[in-house]
Amino acid sequence: MGELGRIEAGRGVVRAKRGKGISWAEIAAEVGRGKVWVTAALLGQHPVDRELAEQVGKLLGLDQEIVEALQLPPVRGAHVVDTTEPAVYRLEEMVQVYGSAIHELIREEFGDGIMSAIDFEMDFQRVADPKGDRVVITLNGKYLQYREF
Amino acid sequence: MGELGRIEAGRGVVRAKRGKGISWAEIAAEVGRGKVWVTAALLGQHPVDRELAEQVGKLLGLDQEIVEALQLPPVRGAHVVDTTEPAVYRLEEMVQVYGSAIHELIREEFGDGIMSAIDFEMDFQRVADPKGDRVVITLNGKYLQYREF
Amino acid sequence: MGELGRIEAGRGVVRAKRGKGISWAEIAAEVGRGKVWVTAALLGQHPVDRELAEQVGKLLGLDQEIVEALQLPPVRGAHVVDTTEPAVYRLEEMVQVYGSAIHELIREEFGDGIMSAIDFEMDFQRVADPKGDRVVITLNGKYLQYREF
Amino acid sequence: MGELGRIEAGRGVVRAKRGKGISWAEIAAEVGRGKVWVTAALLGQHPVDRELAEQVGKLLGLDQEIVEALQLPPVRGAHVVDTTEPAVYRLEEMVQVYGSAIHELIREEFGDGIMSAIDFEMDFQRVADPKGDRVVITLNGKYLQYREF
Amino acid sequence: MGELGRIEAGRGVVRAKRGKGISWAEIAAEVGRGKVWVTAALLGQHPVDRELAEQVGKLLGLDQEIVEALQLPPVRGAHVVDTTEPAVYRLEEMVQVYGSAIHELIREEFGDGIMSAIDFEMDFQRVADPKGDRVVITLNGKYLQYREF
Amino acid sequence: MGELGRIEAGRGVVRAKRGKGISWAEIAAEVGRGKVWVTAALLGQHPVDRELAEQVGKLLGLDQEIVEALQLPPVRGAHVVDTTEPAVYRLEEMVQVYGSAIHELIREEFGDGIMSAIDFEMDFQRVADPKGDRVVITLNGKYLQYREF
Amino acid sequence: MGELGRIEAGRGVVRAKRGKGISWAEIAAEVGRGKVWVTAALLGQHPVDRELAEQVGKLLGLDQEIVEALQLPPVRGAHVVDTTEPAVYRLEEMVQVYGSAIHELIREEFGDGIMSAIDFEMDFQRVADPKGDRVVITLNGKYLQYREF
Amino acid sequence: MGELGRIEAGRGVVRAKRGKGISWAEIAAEVGRGKVWVTAALLGQHPVDRELAEQVGKLLGLDQEIVEALQLPPVRGAHVVDTTEPAVYRLEEMVQVYGSAIHELIREEFGDGIMSAIDFEMDFQRVADPKGDRVVITLNGKYLQYREF
Amino acid sequence: MGELGRIEAGRGVVRAKRGKGISWAEIAAEVGRGKVWVTAALLGQHPVDRELAEQVGKLLGLDQEIVEALQLPPVRGAHVVDTTEPAVYRLEEMVQVYGSAIHELIREEFGDGIMSAIDFEMDFQRVADPKGDRVVITLNGKYLQYREF
Amino acid sequence: MGELGRIEAGRGVVRAKRGKGISWAEIAAEVGRGKVWVTAALLGQHPVDRELAEQVGKLLGLDQEIVEALQLPPVRGAHVVDTTEPAVYRLEEMVQVYGSAIHELIREEFGDGIMSAIDFEMDFQRVADPKGDRVVITLNGKYLQYREF
Repeated sequence: MGELGRIEAGRGVVRAKRGKGISWAEIAAEVGRGKVWVTAALLGQHPVDRELAEQVGKLLGLDQEIVEALQLPPVRGAHVVDTTEPAVYRLEEMVQVYGSAIHELIREEFGDGIMSAIDFEMDFQRVADPKGDRVVITLNGKYLQYREF
Repeated sequence: MGELGRIEAGRGVVRAKRGKGISWAEIAAEVGRGKVWVTAALLGQHPVDRELAEQVGKLLGLDQEIVEALQLPPVRGAHVVDTTEPAVYRLEEMVQVYGSAIHELIREEFGDGIMSAIDFEMDFQRVADPKGDRVVITLNGKYLQYREF
Repeated sequence: MGELGRIEAGRGVVRAKRGKGISWAEIAAEVGRGKVWVTAALLGQHPVDRELAEQVGKLLGLDQEIVEALQLPPVRGAHVVDTTEPAVYRLEEMVQVYGSAIHELIREEFGDGIMSAIDFEMDFQRVADPKGDRVVITLNGKYLQYREF
Repeated sequence: MGELGRIEAGRGVVRAKRGKGISWAEIAAEVGRGKVWVTAALLGQHPVDRELAEQVGKLLGLDQEIVEALQLPPVRGAHVVDTTEPAVYRLEEMVQVYGSAIHELIREEFGDGIMSAIDFEMDFQRVADPKGDRVVITLNGKYLQYREF
Repeated sequence: MGELGRIEAGRGVVRAKRGKGISWAEIAAEVGRGKVWVTAALLGQHPVDRELAEQVGKLLGLDQEIVEALQLPPVRGAHVVDTTEPAVYRLEEMVQVYGSAIHELIREEFGDGIMSAIDFEMDFQRVADPKGDRVVITLNGKYLQYREF
Repeated sequence: MGELGRIEAGRGVVRAKRGKGISWAEIAAEVGRGKVWVTAALLGQHPVDRELAEQVGKLLGLDQEIVEALQLPPVRGAHVVDTTEPAVYRLEEMVQVYGSAIHELIREEFGDGIMSAIDFEMDFQRVADPKGDRVVITLNGKYLQYREF
Repeated sequence: MGELGRIEAGRGVVRAKRGKGISWAEIAAEVGRGKVWVTAALLGQHPVDRELAEQVGKLLGLDQEIVEALQLPPVRGAHVVDTTEPAVYRLEEMVQVYGSAIHELIREEFGDGIMSAIDFEMDFQRVADPKGDRVVITLNGKYLQYREF
Repeated sequence: MGELGRIEAGRGVVRAKRGKGISWAEIAAEVGRGKVWVTAALLGQHPVDRELAEQVGKLLGLDQEIVEALQLPPVRGAHVVDTTEPAVYRLEEMVQVYGSAIHELIREEFGDGIMSAIDFEMDFQRVADPKGDRVVITLNGKYLQYREF
Repeated sequence: MGELGRIEAGRGVVRAKRGKGISWAEIAAEVGRGKVWVTAALLGQHPVDRELAEQVGKLLGLDQEIVEALQLPPVRGAHVVDTTEPAVYRLEEMVQVYGSAIHELIREEFGDGIMSAIDFEMDFQRVADPKGDRVVITLNGKYLQYREF
Repeated sequence: MGELGRIEAGRGVVRAKRGKGISWAEIAAEVGRGKVWVTAALLGQHPVDRELAEQVGKLLGLDQEIVEALQLPPVRGAHVVDTTEPAVYRLEEMVQVYGSAIHELIREEFGDGIMSAIDFEMDFQRVADPKGDRVVITLNGKYLQYREF
């Protein structure tokens, strides 16, 4: 029980994972969940139920205190990411450069609404390329329309 | 010539496009370029050469002043998007909730580096779904590794 | 056509409405839409189609330029409201004082998700009270659950 | 006595409540107060008198230190909520999109004034809906008029 | 009618007042209202009805355009004052140095509530003093208590 | 001696005062100083000499560590108050709504200068009123004129 | 009369001064005032009476519109200087590096108070030095003591 | 050795100095350095070598841990001063009100450059004055000219 | 004369240069100055004397109004660059990632001081590289040491 | 293992290095890496593998805990540098004054792209100069071109 929060539990997972030499993909395979979802969940951004917490605890040899903290509600406020970190900043820059175009295309192909960030999933792949391999991230969210009332 | 910048030229394109009832997809097909790229370019975030500017000018019946302004260098600073606009904000929230997970996965599957936002392309699709159609956006950037020197 | 945006069109509506001495409730009744929705729409935060724009234009005697501008896409970024204006600030303070409680209650009564601000409607009433009449605002949004993927 | 503040006491309540499997609604019923008010109060945003603190302490098996801290004055500054947390942010976005309309309607239906955030109460309900249940929140504040002097 | 807002109308009043050599106190006496209220109202922070606008217009020889603009709704957002201007900053510093003490005294002498800034009035006096005359400002607001619900 | 600062000492005073059930007014009477001044001083915003610290220490039964810390220099930076706390925010809003009027009145009745926030005193009173008692705060500062040189 | 403010009037003075090839020191000598004061006053930060405005107007051949605008009240808010401009930034850095030491020395040599920025004057000199001439600026403000009340 | 930084060492100096009743001027005289420099240095903004650290340590009876920490590199970032503290804020306001005039005078009397904040020294004096003693601070920095290249 | 500032003059240069198809390097060669310096100067960040302004005016066929505006004092505040523009942001990120290392190396190889940004020059080269050409920028500033006084 | 992060490990390296009297250049020579890279890496901004961590640990006599922490992933967010520290600020000011010129020159000599901050290296030299030695920093990054897609 005690004072550990989700962020601290996530750091504990990363530390144990490094010690064991196990990858996120292996954790995902082992617990039968998606790789991106399980990474986000173990870092603290999605709920982890008792069963999953215990599976991961056993796999990584986590302290019981961390296993308990993993079951706290997820944390998703601005403090959970450092947008000035260069790898994350490139995503921010993508929103900056393409945000207006995406908004135009949503309006044209769907209507007056948004891509949900809740009814949402994400895929992450390494794609081989002779000029240098590529990071390919797929964002997939339900279209939600503003309603008239 | 004149005082129009890229942002103003982009607004002129949007206005003319609405008047003509032509879609971004139709513009892209007409000029033989990708839909996302051409949308971003006409809004001002990518360079437009004389040939493209004149093709679009003819298609949408743009004033010559706008055709000229489209050929100015692109603008990509923070002012080109309003991240508090709800459709764009959902992208920001995606970075907030998944940014740390993406960073972990880049580190694990590639190494100490980033997904380039320059050697980068994006796809945008509407995907039919019985529970509500979905917006699917694919980010595709070259992996760049930090170097030791 | 021309240079008027939605904010300027909204100001034109407010000015004409004051001149005619017509209330938002009367506009809503006249055009057969909800009072809150039509107020937000005419201020610029919801789309107004040609039919509605022309109805309102006739009712308030708007210039054709404003009737056209009302049909532009809605604007919903942070600039559309001044949160430091005292009447609006009280809403901000309500979020400050009750936001954490609302989050707890959503989590408890629904699960890991949010109240949609898109599939959303609002009601506004004056309720008579011997100690001073009351403003009663009802927020009504669809519950959206985070998904596992 | 010691160093616990209201925020820490609120975290203690949430932790104990989770351990006991008791809901906010049950706590409210048990102590004979409103559900929203008691949730906000136990999180730290309203005063809790000795009687209430001891009732809740007994119900949840709280340490005496937490029972004492619950009786400190309430805390209501900006730090008591994280407005970037997605569930809370939707309320912020509601203020952004509808704040100007609410201000217009207060002015029209009441006059030059505000909805009090102090002489104020709030209701929270889950409303069943075949297309997905809805969160319904009612804001109810006394109208206060600016005075001439 | 036209494009003048309350801030611009206020500037017009200040300019005309300087030209005529009339003081705020004289304007207040002439129109039979309080000096602080009338100053704030003519600068744009309180509503001015037709009668008052026309009285002031006649007294100061204002253009009809300004007389009209004075009748627009008041503006009270953060932009209506420059808190870094040295005379205003001293008020900010007073809040900084004494705000916590005032909060303690309200809590002790009244209870869990605030001094209303709406049901509020202010007095401003010059008080002679052999060591240098003094500015004496009196703030007078109704106490509002948070309610339990 | 040790690590306590003025803010921590002030919290200790508030805690002890609550325990003893003594009011700020009683402390002020006991030590023969003004109520507002002594409240601000004990919270940390004015200097407290040895004699006063010991008087208050005896009255409230403070630890010697707090008695020592009370004698440290006062702290008056922005961190000593939370301007987003609702009771304090109403003072901020008063500056926002009336700051420009106060500046105009200082200029007119005194000249090119300010009300000192240093050669300054404040009074705080509860004034009975059949429509609800009122908080009356008097600000009294020496007028200081800008000099030509 | 018209729309020019003090900032614009100050720009007009700088432009005319450059055209005439007259220095600030010469203007100061001509009008019999201090060099720093007259520079700050003509840029807009101190009041300029009719006599001085007309003297300067004649000396620099200013338009009557600028002569009038110079007589408006001074402007001293944060917008009157760009603290990121490198020459001004060095002053900011001086406050950063020496501000705490100055505060300590005021407290030690005077007591609990401040150097007034209102009853204040400044001198500016070029001092020859074989290793490179030096800018010497003297700040001279009345000590003001906090009062007990 | 250990974890103390320069800021903490500076606090230790201030505490010990108060305990011993020794002034900054006396410390400066004792160690044969300038009063302003030595104050800034002991607060942490200038380097202190072993000899000086030990002299001061002996004079004030500092712990060896503080004597060691005084020898760490100086700290001069924005966190070393609180510019909202009223005594420091008056310096900020001086930059605000006179910064543009100083820039004009540097340009006129020296050329296109700045007053160095590095090759810089400062003097601090109390000057007796029948109307109230004055704080006189002299800033003395080498003029540096931008170069063409 | 007139209302053009340095920023506007710089835009005029860029526009004319594009029209003429002349490069910065050619302008620099033509006027006998360094390429980086002349680019910065014509954009507005360094002074341009009459001779240089007229040379450039003739070369690019600038309006006399722009030739005059180029001779105004340089502008170097934060507004002269958009640090969120991706090409500029990479420089910001370089300061973020290497700033602490540069500070360490200055301290070690020079002492307690800085690299001047005033007595400073910069070189910019394209360096061919089989893996992709490289941008090579050289920063060259005089070391300035803090002085003891 | 334990709780040390890269920043804390970097501070440990700096402390040990000072104790041993070893320079960054000597560390770099000893471990056979570049001086700037190794300084940045040991401060926490580049990855340090086991071999390098152990070499440095032996050279500086670091605790095993620090040797372990050095092998954690690098940290490169905004918190790793204090841009208000005067030595670092001069780099910020260089970006401010020359950023627009660099952008123009990249565009002219390369095209529509950036200098990579990832495929990047830096050199740092002290260059003797009779008028005062100079800091010479070379930035060397691969040119990356935006792609059309």
